Amino acid sequence: MVNLADKKCVPCRGGEPTLNDAQIDGLRPFVPDWQVKEVDGVKRLERVFKLKNFAEALKFTNQIGAIAEEEDHHPLIVTEWGRVTVQWWTHKIRGLHNNDFIMAAKTDGLLEKS
Amino acid sequence: MVNLADKKCVPCRGGEPTLNDAQIDGLRPFVPDWQVKEVDGVKRLERVFKLKNFAEALKFTNQIGAIAEEEDHHPLIVTEWGRVTVQWWTHKIRGLHNNDFIMAAKTDGLLEKS
Repeated sequence: MVNLADKKCVPCRGGEPTLNDAQIDGLRPFVPDWQVKEVDGVKRLERVFKLKNFAEALKFTNQIGAIAEEEDHHPLIVTEWGRVTVQWWTHKIRGLHNNDFIMAAKTDGLLEKS
Repeated sequence: MVNLADKKCVPCRGGEPTLNDAQIDGLRPFVPDWQVKEVDGVKRLERVFKLKNFAEALKFTNQIGAIAEEEDHHPLIVTEWGRVTVQWWTHKIRGLHNNDFIMAAKTDGLLEKS
């Protein structure tokens, strides 16, 4: 099975179409713990991660921040005591792009490494 | 004027009453940029901070995390590109406590220092 986490984001210049439902359904098995959530008509990938406490949550937020900076693609991260919620979507196209699935897979990979 | 940011959180053991509306109105002038927001019947203090980019937002998130650990009182922090949204409330009493106003003032203070 292709490992999405090993892929790199491609620059998204905007103007590209968002992934359609069939494409999304095709990619979801690669990141089965992520939900597709729609906010103001914009689809996002979301996953809630449970951590031990606030410090561990903040540490994970920083790990996500590092891969975001590396790929120049940035999520929304909610940091709370014992919990981090991550949302990936592509602002420029107001929806989901292959890059978002790659970043979701990379986010999953962070926990496997730690 | 009393500087709330110089105060320390007192341990909240739960069972204490939440601040009432008159008490909240009395404290709001100390943190005028914060809104009182109700989520699932629980009042929270919320402020949105604009930052330059993702790295600056994450840096600010970490600064807030440091004062949260110091006072053992933890917020919800939403980190995005160029924006940090912070919410303070007291989980144990399902509402607002003096501690939340102290932490809001300390959060404001972080930006003044940087």
